[in-house]
Amino acid sequence: MRPIKITPNIIKNADGSVLYESGNTEVICTATFESKVPEWLQDSGWITAEYSMLPASTNSRVTREITRGKKNARSQEIQRLIGRALRGSANLEKMPGISIYVDCDVINADGGTRTASINGGYLAIALALKSKYPDLYNQGILTPVSAISVGKVDGKIVDDLDYIQDSAAEVDLNIVMNSDFNLIEIQGTGEKGTFSNEELNQMLDLGKKCIKNIFDEQIKVLKS
Amino acid sequence: MRPIKITPNIIKNADGSVLYESGNTEVICTATFESKVPEWLQDSGWITAEYSMLPASTNSRVTREITRGKKNARSQEIQRLIGRALRGSANLEKMPGISIYVDCDVINADGGTRTASINGGYLAIALALKSKYPDLYNQGILTPVSAISVGKVDGKIVDDLDYIQDSAAEVDLNIVMNSDFNLIEIQGTGEKGTFSNEELNQMLDLGKKCIKNIFDEQIKVLKS
Amino acid sequence: MRPIKITPNIIKNADGSVLYESGNTEVICTATFESKVPEWLQDSGWITAEYSMLPASTNSRVTREITRGKKNARSQEIQRLIGRALRGSANLEKMPGISIYVDCDVINADGGTRTASINGGYLAIALALKSKYPDLYNQGILTPVSAISVGKVDGKIVDDLDYIQDSAAEVDLNIVMNSDFNLIEIQGTGEKGTFSNEELNQMLDLGKKCIKNIFDEQIKVLKS
Amino acid sequence: MRPIKITPNIIKNADGSVLYESGNTEVICTATFESKVPEWLQDSGWITAEYSMLPASTNSRVTREITRGKKNARSQEIQRLIGRALRGSANLEKMPGISIYVDCDVINADGGTRTASINGGYLAIALALKSKYPDLYNQGILTPVSAISVGKVDGKIVDDLDYIQDSAAEVDLNIVMNSDFNLIEIQGTGEKGTFSNEELNQMLDLGKKCIKNIFDEQIKVLKS
Amino acid sequence: MRPIKITPNIIKNADGSVLYESGNTEVICTATFESKVPEWLQDSGWITAEYSMLPASTNSRVTREITRGKKNARSQEIQRLIGRALRGSANLEKMPGISIYVDCDVINADGGTRTASINGGYLAIALALKSKYPDLYNQGILTPVSAISVGKVDGKIVDDLDYIQDSAAEVDLNIVMNSDFNLIEIQGTGEKGTFSNEELNQMLDLGKKCIKNIFDEQIKVLKS
Amino acid sequence: MRPIKITPNIIKNADGSVLYESGNTEVICTATFESKVPEWLQDSGWITAEYSMLPASTNSRVTREITRGKKNARSQEIQRLIGRALRGSANLEKMPGISIYVDCDVINADGGTRTASINGGYLAIALALKSKYPDLYNQGILTPVSAISVGKVDGKIVDDLDYIQDSAAEVDLNIVMNSDFNLIEIQGTGEKGTFSNEELNQMLDLGKKCIKNIFDEQIKVLKS
Repeated sequence: MRPIKITPNIIKNADGSVLYESGNTEVICTATFESKVPEWLQDSGWITAEYSMLPASTNSRVTREITRGKKNARSQEIQRLIGRALRGSANLEKMPGISIYVDCDVINADGGTRTASINGGYLAIALALKSKYPDLYNQGILTPVSAISVGKVDGKIVDDLDYIQDSAAEVDLNIVMNSDFNLIEIQGTGEKGTFSNEELNQMLDLGKKCIKNIFDEQIKVLKS
Repeated sequence: MRPIKITPNIIKNADGSVLYESGNTEVICTATFESKVPEWLQDSGWITAEYSMLPASTNSRVTREITRGKKNARSQEIQRLIGRALRGSANLEKMPGISIYVDCDVINADGGTRTASINGGYLAIALALKSKYPDLYNQGILTPVSAISVGKVDGKIVDDLDYIQDSAAEVDLNIVMNSDFNLIEIQGTGEKGTFSNEELNQMLDLGKKCIKNIFDEQIKVLKS
Repeated sequence: MRPIKITPNIIKNADGSVLYESGNTEVICTATFESKVPEWLQDSGWITAEYSMLPASTNSRVTREITRGKKNARSQEIQRLIGRALRGSANLEKMPGISIYVDCDVINADGGTRTASINGGYLAIALALKSKYPDLYNQGILTPVSAISVGKVDGKIVDDLDYIQDSAAEVDLNIVMNSDFNLIEIQGTGEKGTFSNEELNQMLDLGKKCIKNIFDEQIKVLKS
Repeated sequence: MRPIKITPNIIKNADGSVLYESGNTEVICTATFESKVPEWLQDSGWITAEYSMLPASTNSRVTREITRGKKNARSQEIQRLIGRALRGSANLEKMPGISIYVDCDVINADGGTRTASINGGYLAIALALKSKYPDLYNQGILTPVSAISVGKVDGKIVDDLDYIQDSAAEVDLNIVMNSDFNLIEIQGTGEKGTFSNEELNQMLDLGKKCIKNIFDEQIKVLKS
Repeated sequence: MRPIKITPNIIKNADGSVLYESGNTEVICTATFESKVPEWLQDSGWITAEYSMLPASTNSRVTREITRGKKNARSQEIQRLIGRALRGSANLEKMPGISIYVDCDVINADGGTRTASINGGYLAIALALKSKYPDLYNQGILTPVSAISVGKVDGKIVDDLDYIQDSAAEVDLNIVMNSDFNLIEIQGTGEKGTFSNEELNQMLDLGKKCIKNIFDEQIKVLKS
Repeated sequence: MRPIKITPNIIKNADGSVLYESGNTEVICTATFESKVPEWLQDSGWITAEYSMLPASTNSRVTREITRGKKNARSQEIQRLIGRALRGSANLEKMPGISIYVDCDVINADGGTRTASINGGYLAIALALKSKYPDLYNQGILTPVSAISVGKVDGKIVDDLDYIQDSAAEVDLNIVMNSDFNLIEIQGTGEKGTFSNEELNQMLDLGKKCIKNIFDEQIKVLKS
């Protein structure tokens, strides 16, 4: 598993922020709070996520979505995953009338940007709660959440795929868990192959180990 | 599990088509072949899927995407899943230069529209191959693929969730398998709860049984 | 004139619906009622129509409007015609505060889709009124409306043009009439030729006969 | 019928142009020639029209289409009519490889802007042909075309409706004819009423008289 | 400096309007008043400008912004300049609750369209105030504003650049001044060269002379 | 003047990059090279700039442009300025066939983001040339360029305005100079006041001093 580096409070104007690095993957995650929720929500709060890549974050420049005029479908899929994962870790009923926007902007991409976004997004919310809403923070409205990608490359189960591994993988599985190691979300795809129930369980076991490490790093940041 | 009804060749102008019904969920799936592939593909074919809902397919009318001016994020996510599932069941190298567009238009929605789209989409391609490209069909470039949703509702594992069950579900899991019961895709979400590894395996077991039934229905259509 | 086939109540979630077939042309027409009118309307109701083609409804696949990013101009023109025709058949003052959305989705196209949409759209509204708003229905807020295309092909006046005739027509005339055979709308175009006042009257005479037939079919559906 | 005023060559950079005034309705019509036709055309030329209103051309300011982000449906319908009318007056086979863009920009609107656009658009093309393509002009590739609106207001047949009449009209009929008084296009709508075949013929008779006047004015401009 | 020609009240439906000509550059400027201001404004009025070019206003036809689907970046930049210039000449606090839309539509372009728009836009507002809001006009809520472009062409300082000069200019400088010859806005660009502080002052001196002439013309129009 | 901090090579996947900080303003500037130029360019290279703000870079969250569906007008204006400034510092004829994309993504905003973008953008290009195109770099195809904002706040001339000063400024002037202290671009606006020629010269003098400091910092980075 690649080394993790977390730099808290990197964006001064954000309510909460981290630079989350996993190997060469670097994502700026910020949390912004607003006292307004979508109309269809009652007596509850809301968390929404947006995911975007800086044009120069990949090997060949990515055209900005606004230049193409449409939101990239992959980005949409990823930000829906991040939003579900973070809502799955929060007790939204305990924060009525509050919306949290989590922005995940990839500044350098080398595989695993969606799981880095979940890990960093959780921290951005937690840091914002800690410094600006200590009452909510102490009520424990947010339970820890961590995510990792595992996969099958050349027939072997591997963890934390970088860009080269990801491009060659037969199977790619993203796992999101809470601190009891229960699943919040699981997404596995076999575009270049299939996978058995047994392989799924092997990947889950490996993922669980990675997630334990990530929890430890997240806790260090929040304790400091 | 709800009754399945499959009406082949429902759209005269399509290369292949079915009306796929699962309970009150009804999806028109069509396959259109074009002799042109995306530039970045070499020596290979391609399958792409589009998913859309008729405005009156749900209880309260859904505004058309073109009226809102943007593709719905949920639709994007679903059509990416359908595309991956169908590509996962095809031997794209054996159909160089051919693109297949699979259009899944939901005419009535009652839960499970994405898995119905995969099941119907596979049939639309197979029917088109059978009638228009018998050589490719006989080469077996397409292996069967089936999908089902299972979930946890009120703490119990249930299969083939309808709209009311889906709205109340703690966990929603979509499973896509080939005819060897290996996984092509798995997507599970616990927005209102989490799920253990054991529960995941229970859901997979139940899903496998449903998928067996669906394969039987699909084979009947192709044999007739 | 091609055979007409009308299947009522085809979409379960719609307030009213029909599958309207004229030869190989097939259109799903639905009516959805909402208790809300545009701001600029006072003491009145409103009827609006949307027309769209499924991608596989034509010989070569039609790109979805949302993919192109703009509403197709031909569709706009057609749905404005449908809306005017249906408003022309309704007594909007008698249904204040009610909007009716008529969605016409062409699932197979073989000429005459706009007139099929008017004929089916009228039925979708009438069926919705009959089953859900019997008071309004009995007040007769809706008077019958029917439409047909006639034209000049190879110098001869013909009715109910299919796709091949339409492509070759010198003149294409769409006629919308109420049950007194008064005109609600007339649209005639001579892209490949012109037409005299006399020819216009011949086409109107022929159209009137077709419309009589269509009224008979519509009444049968509503009486059953 | 309101007075017509035609000012030729009003836009220096255009290939051909007129300011066409009918009462208080004022439209700038320009023709621009390009040596390039749409791909699907072979051995033929093409004429396309665009119609737009200046924001201050109406009583209450009209938001620009680019600000709303979508082409106005009424404008689409109108520019399709203008395009058909002008193509109907041209011998496109005699101008292979040439596209003519006709831009109709309404600078002041008081009813009848679409028919003014057709009348002015024809002149813009003719003036451009005369000064820049005398060979094509002398071959007579363009036959005269004129248009007028007539209608039924308070039960009476009236010609050349201004904005106030148009708003009150039971029936609005737009007629496009060539110089033999054959119809190129006819569009009649009865949103607030219906009209009989006999009334249609009365309106056509009145329209024919107006069109005779317009032809006279158009010829004067081209002869000078 | 090229001859200026100002035709007031050219658009009947506008609150105020001019056709402003500077050589072959011709811009229709209109002012429309609305009793509604953006939400974020309190106790103040607002002036906003929109700039657009007719498709045939330039040598080769300009595609409409709505056809491209996005506002042209150059137009955006220009209309922001016009808006700032006109707000800089108005006492917005004295017109609380009033928004003025200034529309500048270039009908023929030969260099200097943005400064012509400012000069004409000021007049359109002043004429609207004079005829419709004489109280505000007499309070002097608007102070005169004029604009001119100067530049360096072939090493020489020149004023009022036409299209050919502008295309060849090393430096292009737009100056906006009030009637005390104080600067409201200055924008200078040296894409094909640079310019010294001294040259900047020479260009300013020349611009001041031009602006004096423009003020004289503007006053003539308002006095008549 | 606020302290400047420049961190080179901050984005691994970019050809050249810096994090440019001026006080609390922080901008990631990257340069990406492509071997392809716009069609209308011959025998020349091209430099284009894009400017964007991260949603959490300001006090209240900025909605992403893709969410609004249109490029922000202020961003357009700024990125056009950055592009002109950088092209003004390059000898484009010496790099035929090469396009350079300069992306300026503001991660924290506290005034002066556009001038920081120019200063950082120049460095990103220079670093890319130095490491990847040493031949071009040694030919001196790029001459230094620096930019600073000065202004008038409470009647006094001040340099390097932060957000609070900028919001209160009577005059805001952005100056772009090359290393000979000749002007490449000047943009001054007096929305809340005007400024005399003399004040303009005072602001230029102050700006020149700031620019000298910035050049020193830029040179340090390039020499290291």
